[in-house]
Amino acid sequence: MRIVALAGGIGGARFLRGLLAAVGPQDEITVIGNTGDDIHLYGLKVCPDLDTVMYTLGGGIHEEQGWGRTDETWSIKAEMKEYGVGPEWFGLGDRDFATHLVRSQMLTAGYSLSQVTEALCVRWKPGVRLLPMSDDRVETHVRITDEQGTRAIHFQEYWVRLHAAVDAEAIIPVGADTAKPAPGVLEALAAADVILFPPSNPVVSIGTILAVPGIREAVAAAPAPVVGLSPIIGGAPVRGMADKVLAAVGAEATAEAVALNYGSALIDGWLVDTADQASVAAVEAAGIACRAVPLLMTDVEATAEMARAALALAEQVRK
Amino acid sequence: MRIVALAGGIGGARFLRGLLAAVGPQDEITVIGNTGDDIHLYGLKVCPDLDTVMYTLGGGIHEEQGWGRTDETWSIKAEMKEYGVGPEWFGLGDRDFATHLVRSQMLTAGYSLSQVTEALCVRWKPGVRLLPMSDDRVETHVRITDEQGTRAIHFQEYWVRLHAAVDAEAIIPVGADTAKPAPGVLEALAAADVILFPPSNPVVSIGTILAVPGIREAVAAAPAPVVGLSPIIGGAPVRGMADKVLAAVGAEATAEAVALNYGSALIDGWLVDTADQASVAAVEAAGIACRAVPLLMTDVEATAEMARAALALAEQVRK
Repeated sequence: MRIVALAGGIGGARFLRGLLAAVGPQDEITVIGNTGDDIHLYGLKVCPDLDTVMYTLGGGIHEEQGWGRTDETWSIKAEMKEYGVGPEWFGLGDRDFATHLVRSQMLTAGYSLSQVTEALCVRWKPGVRLLPMSDDRVETHVRITDEQGTRAIHFQEYWVRLHAAVDAEAIIPVGADTAKPAPGVLEALAAADVILFPPSNPVVSIGTILAVPGIREAVAAAPAPVVGLSPIIGGAPVRGMADKVLAAVGAEATAEAVALNYGSALIDGWLVDTADQASVAAVEAAGIACRAVPLLMTDVEATAEMARAALALAEQVRK
Repeated sequence: MRIVALAGGIGGARFLRGLLAAVGPQDEITVIGNTGDDIHLYGLKVCPDLDTVMYTLGGGIHEEQGWGRTDETWSIKAEMKEYGVGPEWFGLGDRDFATHLVRSQMLTAGYSLSQVTEALCVRWKPGVRLLPMSDDRVETHVRITDEQGTRAIHFQEYWVRLHAAVDAEAIIPVGADTAKPAPGVLEALAAADVILFPPSNPVVSIGTILAVPGIREAVAAAPAPVVGLSPIIGGAPVRGMADKVLAAVGAEATAEAVALNYGSALIDGWLVDTADQASVAAVEAAGIACRAVPLLMTDVEATAEMARAALALAEQVRK
């Protein structure tokens, strides 16, 4: 079975680990990773979501933190502070820096982000084919209003420095309008047997991937059933601050609202947590098959069970 | 007093520390640093000699090693090995990487190496004005003949990977012919009260600095006395492998031969170690005032005493 999953960072990566545990060795998983969170720091290209997927599936992730490397050291960060350089609010460990150095050197040498990602995965062996959503630069910016007035800041600044404490007025995937899907993305969607939306942020992760011209259309046109998992449980994001950015797209932070925001033109099935049993009927009324199952990714087996439920729902809605 | 010193890496840096201990607060020291050892690694510009001077005088050097940072971690090096990237023979610690990241980012932003060096020194406060010999790229290559034939390799590969175990047939400062002295270099030499050649490598350190068009001429034309200290004691380099590269310029590895290689057109005074007392007469016969004093930089005070001897000899040869 060919499974294609759109994925952001921590939530996506953890779901994929469960998915890998749920499928067999003959199944092929292609992951289309969000690159809207990418940021240039110290002249290096940093791809937080791709790396979180790669490290998580490759056994190098800092488990408790959810991002960055295990056994990390922080010498460069300490030195940067001494030099008075760079954003103190963005923490990159030394091991993580090595990834960004290799990536940046390859990009400067003329390789595409797809090629670089493939090369990095030679080491990490994530067990999936990891594709960036695009080889073109797309950067998610967030429009806010504070004492400095109304302005758009990089998503990482909004998320990491401001902890999403200011209202997000708009989410702007800068560059998305002219970006092209990375090689293999549209082909994978067209050839998929199942397309999954893991419980990633629906706006800044999945939404940004869908904002690359051609990808939303390819998902909608794909013959495969499309099934998503709600990142919202009981009216709040399980992790992260998805509620903050949902408001920017006019959606409530409920499992139901996220499903309706995707819409029946895009998704065929939707999983909500058992805590959101009450929303099943409304989602189904919108033409989206919906089931309530436990959606807390407490461990790999619980997550694998979520993946099985998603794949089962995909079979039920397969035309 | 305005003192100008030409300096390579470890030997030069240690001498400068002694010089700083020997002079008073009213004395101004300008260091013209060798950049021929510079190497591009992982897309970053690495300046080993400038950094060794900066770290040594700024209190950040790894004392026993002589290069690199104290309290260093090696996470990136370990990661690069896992990625199968980059020369394993060249060790860059994580703290050191931070310097190269800041430097490279500033160079990419359009600052000159002089400006970058000045900016880095804001943190390190080396107590000297540190100038690169040139803002232009000069890279010392070494011609060797081995089983792969005759070819020129980067100096660092010759020095660090091959440990100078193969004969150096020629030392080629690639780019030197079109390089210009960095801003302030010629002015400092012209305005100097004393010019010193520390016991740095006469070929690949001092020699490379002198190979930048205009610098040798400015040293020769400077009204200030020029005094050098022999890096060779008893027929062998105190540290490093200067004998290997002296052969490439047709000079023996003796205190006398190094003096004669500079020549009386360039230097007015020369210090040899007491072990080389026998060579004093021959050096003086070549028109260079020569004294034999202890030249082992065993500690800062012994080195300060060497600096005092050099400054005293400068007074004796002052016209």
